[in-house]
Amino acid sequence: MADAIASLRVRGAGCIGAAAGYGMYLAAREIAAGGPTVDTIPATLAEAGDRLAATRPTAVNLRWAVDRQLRTLAGITDPGELVTCARAEADAIADEDAAASRAIGRFGLPLIREIHERTRRPVNVLTHCNAGWLAFVDEGTATAPIYAAHEAGIPVHVWVDETRPVNQGARLTAWELGQAGVPHTVIVDNAGGHLMQHGKVDIVIVGSDRTAANGDVANKIGTYLKAVAARDNGIPFYAALPSSSIDWASDDGLADTPIEQRSGREITHVRGVAADGRLVEVATMAPEEPVANYAFDVTPARLVTGLITERGICGATPAGIAGLFPERTRP
Amino acid sequence: MADAIASLRVRGAGCIGAAAGYGMYLAAREIAAGGPTVDTIPATLAEAGDRLAATRPTAVNLRWAVDRQLRTLAGITDPGELVTCARAEADAIADEDAAASRAIGRFGLPLIREIHERTRRPVNVLTHCNAGWLAFVDEGTATAPIYAAHEAGIPVHVWVDETRPVNQGARLTAWELGQAGVPHTVIVDNAGGHLMQHGKVDIVIVGSDRTAANGDVANKIGTYLKAVAARDNGIPFYAALPSSSIDWASDDGLADTPIEQRSGREITHVRGVAADGRLVEVATMAPEEPVANYAFDVTPARLVTGLITERGICGATPAGIAGLFPERTRP
Repeated sequence: MADAIASLRVRGAGCIGAAAGYGMYLAAREIAAGGPTVDTIPATLAEAGDRLAATRPTAVNLRWAVDRQLRTLAGITDPGELVTCARAEADAIADEDAAASRAIGRFGLPLIREIHERTRRPVNVLTHCNAGWLAFVDEGTATAPIYAAHEAGIPVHVWVDETRPVNQGARLTAWELGQAGVPHTVIVDNAGGHLMQHGKVDIVIVGSDRTAANGDVANKIGTYLKAVAARDNGIPFYAALPSSSIDWASDDGLADTPIEQRSGREITHVRGVAADGRLVEVATMAPEEPVANYAFDVTPARLVTGLITERGICGATPAGIAGLFPERTRP
Repeated sequence: MADAIASLRVRGAGCIGAAAGYGMYLAAREIAAGGPTVDTIPATLAEAGDRLAATRPTAVNLRWAVDRQLRTLAGITDPGELVTCARAEADAIADEDAAASRAIGRFGLPLIREIHERTRRPVNVLTHCNAGWLAFVDEGTATAPIYAAHEAGIPVHVWVDETRPVNQGARLTAWELGQAGVPHTVIVDNAGGHLMQHGKVDIVIVGSDRTAANGDVANKIGTYLKAVAARDNGIPFYAALPSSSIDWASDDGLADTPIEQRSGREITHVRGVAADGRLVEVATMAPEEPVANYAFDVTPARLVTGLITERGICGATPAGIAGLFPERTRP
């Protein structure tokens, strides 16, 4: 499971949280099958959790799901009970993720409806990367309000950022929206500012891999560029996220968020389908060129119009977040 | 020549201006060889010029070079003289382009030197697309100050935006800088904002395909996103350009600049070298997806710290531009 997460076979905030939950269940099964003594169960589980959590340093859901399993499994000494409890907790994490996405869709829908009622034309949403059903257990976060609007009969059109270097927008979000019958257009990541300048974007909705308690939003590299352009053009910019991706320990996401750096090969090479139908990996530039591959950036809270969460929409401020999640507010 | 320009075999503001000049020389040779009557020479030349100018609607140098040839050749009735004069004018356009780039390097160098003297460390320049020697007859515009600094012994490192969809940064600028021995790192277009937030960019220098007389700068799609992020982080943003790319007729580049839209295939497909060394074109996404391919955007003058021209640096304002080019100022 750690390999699947590191290699992006499973990706997206919700999916990697759920996958980490099931990863801990796999660890419990290995314990039951191979039999460490009762004394070593906690250490074995902790080691599995550390291995899972280390795969994607920027993501919060990973550590959150691991810690949740460790709390649930603490003190259990019977291997059969360990497996049963780990499976139940993993299922709960996945089900809650799906429920959170549905709630985010419900709370985000009025934002799109309001624009349509005001303009009486299709609402143009811009999104970056993939925070859809392929990134969460179901529905997704950034896409949930879009799907909700589409189902409610509100005409909506989505500008899909290609999202280099891994092209999650062009390969995942575009496919998802197509499957759901939502009109959309793929653009290169460079194009969003031009569209905003010319009135072709009504609202930006993105996901988040880690939102600090001050409202700073870490998301796929390039999100910040869209946020600063949205502000320059007076366009609302929302991040949609389950509270499981909030980093409650951070009051300064820009300073605190560890930014994952990935292999330069993601930039120098690309896989695609050749004319003969074969899947081929090609080098699109000289492979020996120096490259840097930062996977995320942080959008400062001041550029975020609001956070769409499973409990409603709040301002991207400590007070706004604390208002929706009072139980997490530190004294 | 029109086909070479349209298909990007020749690209970059200076190169397409020079190519258009030589395109008119080729037209003059055809006239001399095939022999329209004296009466039809002007119409034949005008038609050739229109065909050349129509290939890249955003570029100013194209029309400028064509008009310059039409003025030079007006009234010439002897076919031999027509060819000689067209060749001389094309050579002059090319030589002036090279001289302009050298001057831009000379005027831009102090900007980089000042940063180095202040920080005592390598100067990090970010550039977008390719405005180097492959885009101009020599030296280039955005890169000219970089080459000048490197030659002057000032340590400089360049962040090279990949520049989707055609990847001129990864394929041309990175290669150029490598040939010149200038340290550089290729990044995806999404990464620049993150680098700016973390103090890793000292100055942004880009080229321009069309600069309006009010200082609005049209350049490769995505330039505006870098400009607005530079402003958000207090980083100077310069456009380097020969005056041949200024649109003297426009007081509002954002409103007036025609934005070329190119084939969606530039987004859905990419060419690269496969493991077996063959050059292969692959589809990186479902080829039937709807795509939009805007080739340029316009950076409003308010985000431009200054324009580096062949006559010096000026503010991106009507007064600043008029100060350097008083002969072009309208009453």
